[in-house]
Amino acid sequence: MLNPTGRQESKESSLGVALIDLVIANRVLARIGAVDAYGHVSVRHPTEPDRFLLSRSRSPRLVDRGDIMQFDLDGAVIGPDDRPPYLERFIHAAVYAAREDVQAVAHGHAQVLLPFTVAEVRMRPLFMTADEFGANVPLWDIRTAFGSGTNLLITDMDQAKDLAGAFGRNDRVVLLRGHGFVAAGRSASQLIRMCKALMDNAALQLEASRLGPLMELTGEEIDARRRTIGADDEHPSMMRGFEYEAIEAGLEELLRERAELKIRSK
Amino acid sequence: MLNPTGRQESKESSLGVALIDLVIANRVLARIGAVDAYGHVSVRHPTEPDRFLLSRSRSPRLVDRGDIMQFDLDGAVIGPDDRPPYLERFIHAAVYAAREDVQAVAHGHAQVLLPFTVAEVRMRPLFMTADEFGANVPLWDIRTAFGSGTNLLITDMDQAKDLAGAFGRNDRVVLLRGHGFVAAGRSASQLIRMCKALMDNAALQLEASRLGPLMELTGEEIDARRRTIGADDEHPSMMRGFEYEAIEAGLEELLRERAELKIRSK
Amino acid sequence: MLNPTGRQESKESSLGVALIDLVIANRVLARIGAVDAYGHVSVRHPTEPDRFLLSRSRSPRLVDRGDIMQFDLDGAVIGPDDRPPYLERFIHAAVYAAREDVQAVAHGHAQVLLPFTVAEVRMRPLFMTADEFGANVPLWDIRTAFGSGTNLLITDMDQAKDLAGAFGRNDRVVLLRGHGFVAAGRSASQLIRMCKALMDNAALQLEASRLGPLMELTGEEIDARRRTIGADDEHPSMMRGFEYEAIEAGLEELLRERAELKIRSK
Amino acid sequence: MLNPTGRQESKESSLGVALIDLVIANRVLARIGAVDAYGHVSVRHPTEPDRFLLSRSRSPRLVDRGDIMQFDLDGAVIGPDDRPPYLERFIHAAVYAAREDVQAVAHGHAQVLLPFTVAEVRMRPLFMTADEFGANVPLWDIRTAFGSGTNLLITDMDQAKDLAGAFGRNDRVVLLRGHGFVAAGRSASQLIRMCKALMDNAALQLEASRLGPLMELTGEEIDARRRTIGADDEHPSMMRGFEYEAIEAGLEELLRERAELKIRSK
Repeated sequence: MLNPTGRQESKESSLGVALIDLVIANRVLARIGAVDAYGHVSVRHPTEPDRFLLSRSRSPRLVDRGDIMQFDLDGAVIGPDDRPPYLERFIHAAVYAAREDVQAVAHGHAQVLLPFTVAEVRMRPLFMTADEFGANVPLWDIRTAFGSGTNLLITDMDQAKDLAGAFGRNDRVVLLRGHGFVAAGRSASQLIRMCKALMDNAALQLEASRLGPLMELTGEEIDARRRTIGADDEHPSMMRGFEYEAIEAGLEELLRERAELKIRSK
Repeated sequence: MLNPTGRQESKESSLGVALIDLVIANRVLARIGAVDAYGHVSVRHPTEPDRFLLSRSRSPRLVDRGDIMQFDLDGAVIGPDDRPPYLERFIHAAVYAAREDVQAVAHGHAQVLLPFTVAEVRMRPLFMTADEFGANVPLWDIRTAFGSGTNLLITDMDQAKDLAGAFGRNDRVVLLRGHGFVAAGRSASQLIRMCKALMDNAALQLEASRLGPLMELTGEEIDARRRTIGADDEHPSMMRGFEYEAIEAGLEELLRERAELKIRSK
Repeated sequence: MLNPTGRQESKESSLGVALIDLVIANRVLARIGAVDAYGHVSVRHPTEPDRFLLSRSRSPRLVDRGDIMQFDLDGAVIGPDDRPPYLERFIHAAVYAAREDVQAVAHGHAQVLLPFTVAEVRMRPLFMTADEFGANVPLWDIRTAFGSGTNLLITDMDQAKDLAGAFGRNDRVVLLRGHGFVAAGRSASQLIRMCKALMDNAALQLEASRLGPLMELTGEEIDARRRTIGADDEHPSMMRGFEYEAIEAGLEELLRERAELKIRSK
Repeated sequence: MLNPTGRQESKESSLGVALIDLVIANRVLARIGAVDAYGHVSVRHPTEPDRFLLSRSRSPRLVDRGDIMQFDLDGAVIGPDDRPPYLERFIHAAVYAAREDVQAVAHGHAQVLLPFTVAEVRMRPLFMTADEFGANVPLWDIRTAFGSGTNLLITDMDQAKDLAGAFGRNDRVVLLRGHGFVAAGRSASQLIRMCKALMDNAALQLEASRLGPLMELTGEEIDARRRTIGADDEHPSMMRGFEYEAIEAGLEELLRERAELKIRSK
């Protein structure tokens, strides 16, 4: 059992890990095209679950630890911090409020996903990694609750709560009509794998749908994969994927620092 | 109120800003593939509205301030300047003459837009940034007024005026059958955003149209966006996009110079 | 005739060539996108045909000679070697056991091939290099023998033997539903040519199938090509392709070493 | 009028220009993907019209002046030169023999053109530069005259003459079923423009054909373009395109040398 000092140190190390994970997620998701200059990525605060961490308004591929601000679950800035936040930060607040199991959220406009936001067709689980996002990917249309006179952006808690309500209990991704997607991950690491799986599967469905009838993964296959693969994100075989992507994004130094903090946070 | 010297200096600074904006627009539009080696980009003269600025005949990705010439609204070169101009400069002249609100014009042959110039299908506003170019994108066919014996190039004022007449009062883009596009922007900054939005939307429509019926932005949504986003191109949040693209094109130095001139031009 | 020492030296040189060929195949197949971070590539042991060579669990684009382990035809590690192997190594074991003519095997998830693993359409030999993989490319579905509750991965010999049984006597490639492909080559060099041919042909079929009815290579044409082109993988004109790809992958030094070993192994 | 020495010098300069043009055409066509590692490009000998210049068997992107050999119009090597030639050199021989107006020939397997070699659909002139290759692009199938038991390669004069016969009097490109294309240019410069136009038009037709009925260039438009644009390949505005591509391929030095030789060859 930790003494108070040890507990304090452990908390700080946890926050340190979370900040690194958030920087890695920003950079990796930018590199693979999941988020463009106008997307954003957050993680829940590791020791204060009613807060989340999100960069000041900045292109994800530029985000560094110094850019990260803290917000409460109404999207309000915490602490004296007058840097301009993202306009659509409410999305993150509402998803963390609605879903206790969610630890990381991304919102972006990946080109390969957009066709599924404007065509009347659902995304189907085809490639084996589809278990990362699951069989059901709802489409949320801002018109349904807010009429056809909005500018499509989610700029207050009312809109964000309505969007968060579109997630079913087992859903991890919601598409936004004419706009983009929101992905809600179990961790920064799973969020990255999920966004990649989502993009791979979308590209596949776009290509395959012109060839003929498609064979989907069954619900049983998705369940079997979730049971046997990747349930523990800190397992070495899962971390290998996370590390691989971080290295591709030029973040080897951050990985080293993360490993040290990880030891201290236990 | 400025004294005569101050007014003169302000004028020169305005022209300096316009020249920089034109170089940035050339380079950025070349980098994103909106214009190829044979496209061209212009801005209206900031203090002499019956003139416009356009490079000598040169690939847009190479254009520098020293390449820029001045033309009147008949496409004639102003001043003693015997450098060869673009063959199709008349397009710019006619659009500035017909539309007082237009401050920047691009003509190019972006590959992703060409399908909409040869297929009997209209471009539809699908992705949220479609408000930059709007719900209506007319297709102009040189055959209609000039018969099927032309070489498709717009090489005199008659042809250019006919083309300029294809723009409806609220239209910002016209497609040219088998040839390319003309985009008429509110500013160099808006021209860049518009070309990007146009290309993103075209790529999206090409992909999505194979999936099933499509959901368009409503006219109300386009209006709401125009009211609430980007009406002021010099607003910091709009300038951020312009600066982002300029930096990607390696033009950070020009941005600094622009900021200094901007202060002096007020 | 070689004396015992000469024979021993010849054996060692053969193994040296095989190790180099395996490194080249890993790197080249990664470079052209046939295998991603999770694919793997093997060659049969050149002098002990009931063994095969395969890297420890590592991304193919990073594989070096020091990473290579030896396995028997049940997928068991040979020798004291406790490095973690690929989970799906059984695929290689079962294919080498079932097919004496196979000297090199690749398993991957090339994006361009995936549509043919989820759509009910067969891959058709269209481009002339299709003789490398042939007229028949079976699709194996793990559900048929193992039910719809698997996680799709091939993780034991039972599954691997069933998969290996999907190869007809003249087949060189099997597709795995929702998962990827297994290619069984006559040599490392032919494996590379075959993967390239497979990807080129898949891209072609995806594009062409939207245009109208397709003209396939005839069986006679495939036979004529196999008789007249590339039957001898060490022929200079075949080695030129292998060398070209190796050089593109930055492996010129390995090629030089291979040439020296090749002389000694005769 | 030149004295004999002057005439000799002029001849040598012409050959020097031709060699440079051939190197540029090889490198540029490789860079834009018109020819891959197995394509080849030739020019007719400038002063001996019954000969042509073609590299020894080598990847076009590596070809240098020292690689170039001379052949007669039966595809036989001229002079003592035992370097291995391309297997399919007969294509070039037969086209130069059949068509006096042709000065440059390319054979390749550009991926974007292949769909038109296997689908029962003709290539249609859609984008304005289609005048470079024209309204009619025949498809030649080796089966028609040589049966379905060939290996598809053109390896003797009989096959090559049959292929050359597929060009109509005004045709500049023939597609080869399941194999690739042959383009017959008026000059090295026009050959480059034509290959680019062919690839742009093919990409356009592939994309546009999914949208709806297509609008082709008329025969009159093609004629008007041929009359008014690019009839003189040494005209500065035509040379600008040639120079632009050569510079992109890193061949600025060769262009300078060409300009000097050009003056001496007059």
